[in-house]
Amino acid sequence: MKAPIVTLLTDFGTKDHYVASMKGVILKVNPRCQVVDITHEVNPQDIAEGAFILANAYSYFPEGTVHLAVVDPEVGGKRNPLLIVTERYFFVGPDNGLFSLVLQREEIKEVYCLTKKRFFLREVSSTFHGRDLFSPVAGHLTLGVSPPSFGQKIDSWKTIGFPTPVLKPGRIEGQVIHIDSFGNLITNIEGKQLNLFKKDQPFSIFIGRRQIKGIRKGYWDAIRGELVCLIGSAGFLEIAVREGDARRMLKVSKGSCVEIRIDRKR
Amino acid sequence: MKAPIVTLLTDFGTKDHYVASMKGVILKVNPRCQVVDITHEVNPQDIAEGAFILANAYSYFPEGTVHLAVVDPEVGGKRNPLLIVTERYFFVGPDNGLFSLVLQREEIKEVYCLTKKRFFLREVSSTFHGRDLFSPVAGHLTLGVSPPSFGQKIDSWKTIGFPTPVLKPGRIEGQVIHIDSFGNLITNIEGKQLNLFKKDQPFSIFIGRRQIKGIRKGYWDAIRGELVCLIGSAGFLEIAVREGDARRMLKVSKGSCVEIRIDRKR
Amino acid sequence: MKAPIVTLLTDFGTKDHYVASMKGVILKVNPRCQVVDITHEVNPQDIAEGAFILANAYSYFPEGTVHLAVVDPEVGGKRNPLLIVTERYFFVGPDNGLFSLVLQREEIKEVYCLTKKRFFLREVSSTFHGRDLFSPVAGHLTLGVSPPSFGQKIDSWKTIGFPTPVLKPGRIEGQVIHIDSFGNLITNIEGKQLNLFKKDQPFSIFIGRRQIKGIRKGYWDAIRGELVCLIGSAGFLEIAVREGDARRMLKVSKGSCVEIRIDRKR
Repeated sequence: MKAPIVTLLTDFGTKDHYVASMKGVILKVNPRCQVVDITHEVNPQDIAEGAFILANAYSYFPEGTVHLAVVDPEVGGKRNPLLIVTERYFFVGPDNGLFSLVLQREEIKEVYCLTKKRFFLREVSSTFHGRDLFSPVAGHLTLGVSPPSFGQKIDSWKTIGFPTPVLKPGRIEGQVIHIDSFGNLITNIEGKQLNLFKKDQPFSIFIGRRQIKGIRKGYWDAIRGELVCLIGSAGFLEIAVREGDARRMLKVSKGSCVEIRIDRKR
Repeated sequence: MKAPIVTLLTDFGTKDHYVASMKGVILKVNPRCQVVDITHEVNPQDIAEGAFILANAYSYFPEGTVHLAVVDPEVGGKRNPLLIVTERYFFVGPDNGLFSLVLQREEIKEVYCLTKKRFFLREVSSTFHGRDLFSPVAGHLTLGVSPPSFGQKIDSWKTIGFPTPVLKPGRIEGQVIHIDSFGNLITNIEGKQLNLFKKDQPFSIFIGRRQIKGIRKGYWDAIRGELVCLIGSAGFLEIAVREGDARRMLKVSKGSCVEIRIDRKR
Repeated sequence: MKAPIVTLLTDFGTKDHYVASMKGVILKVNPRCQVVDITHEVNPQDIAEGAFILANAYSYFPEGTVHLAVVDPEVGGKRNPLLIVTERYFFVGPDNGLFSLVLQREEIKEVYCLTKKRFFLREVSSTFHGRDLFSPVAGHLTLGVSPPSFGQKIDSWKTIGFPTPVLKPGRIEGQVIHIDSFGNLITNIEGKQLNLFKKDQPFSIFIGRRQIKGIRKGYWDAIRGELVCLIGSAGFLEIAVREGDARRMLKVSKGSCVEIRIDRKR
């Protein structure tokens, strides 16, 4: 019999006892669980970043996986603790928009507000629901406790908006939405949106004061140190430097504008 | 049948091969083990920090868990390698005070000096007992080898002192004992010690040149960027900035004084 | 029945979704796997560093372990994706020299170029073969799929050279090949090479402008802050500072020269 999987995504870092405490709580409820880290290095309180990383990782896990995510600046306050049941997964965490991107992609079955204290630790602190509330709920889910047991079904929850690119004739205006640890700039422009341009129309990508001509097939399709655009592994237009760091070279940050324009004929 | 759990706490970082080698050794002895990281980012050789993080994480794990901790500046020297058996857990690591805080909280059953070489790797280096000695012992413990098999029972071990707050009439003098990755300042003043003050007596917390009035219920009970005191998830008085970094704002470090005083009537 | 083990070594860092996606893919193929991190903090595109860390960790894992390593600057280009079968292990990753050191130590049975697309994800991106190609292959290996099923047997693969020390009468010239997270300087001089010197001949180690006399038995065999040489846990001559950071003290970097010379009689 296979071990049920719980993934963790937090902004807790890995130096302190926080993440380990959550793993302990989950394993105390169900020692057969396999707990897998997505990341604990979300920028503190950066819900949008957490949402982006979660959305790019969750669907690679087996169906039935419990995804536990905690970026929770209002912990202990009025925001609801949530259990979201989709066709394929369970999501557990605070109702603050952290699941916004995931829910654009998943078919939602039911959403519950976690109210049943018998599934929480006996004492629930006001600053660490990740350990005291969300982790034991995740553990019990892997034991097969049915979703309605955890609380009250609800019909609305918080979503946060993500900037979408603006499509104009011969032009797409987007922005950098994530910068990975290589310094690659991931934009909100989807690869398939480039199909708006006719096949034989050459175009350029503009960022900062730089112009980059066309799309490459991969990092290998450039010389070392060259600035290139390509469609990254999450399906978005990405700006990179072969064996280098595009963030440093271009001195841009999250939110920087990226524009694609059809090249003018001369 | 459930997988036995071994937790790891070290100051080895995660860049090098050290931690992975330990995991390999444990899994070679018992491939059914689940190895869970507490942290590997203890400041190099900072036994007190390791003791603090371990003490805040260990008790959330299932009974029977083997907690393997290695912050070991005297590795290969005269300090004893230990196995500590308590009512609920096993602790394996060097005899240098790393388990001091844990042992204040656990009921000790027996302590052994690890001497039986048949449980070590064939060659024991003088610089890496984590891999060569402690990991194989931890692995064998999860196989059910009885504690007396590993060595000689001993009656004394090293403890290190942790500063305790000074309680005076209308006043508590403590200090910052840990700073977490959010920049929250965790003090050695326990939440229950605030009961020394009468219920209707307002008090303030003093740190650096700042005065903070009273205790909040949670981070949510403050405006963004506000400096607050609250009782943190480990039960200690904590100084934090809502969605900010108290260490940076106050420019304090571990050991900084924190004082609580009843407010004077005018 | 024991869980099969897959180890991961990459230069992806742990902030982004990359590593978690790989783990998800592996667990989707075989939910009974245990996935263990070696490291994800290899310097970006530093194949030699990845090779060094892998070589020092892999052999501690149980026989049959699948070692999946991805430091892959030419991902999506012409370099082959490899499966290497040795007497004891499987190695999966790009053909760029990443397995050079491992293959000096292991007895190679067969090497395959991964060509059978039925073992890849349905869509293979040009930038993330770790997730789309290597991870599903690793997962299927743990299910018992036979190595020839994955592709075509090949007879040659890329190796990268590592500097070896120069042995002269009364003298060994080597260099720093790795600096660990403590700041210890690991050289390419093997402990057993010191046997070239006669037992009663005192010698010194020279690095930067410093001379260090002889070899210590361990860090403990020095006073705090003292610069020492010893034979490290991987069998190489190592330069360290007791409870300090040799890299900072000596201001050296990878590639710095290290020389051992017999002391002159006066």
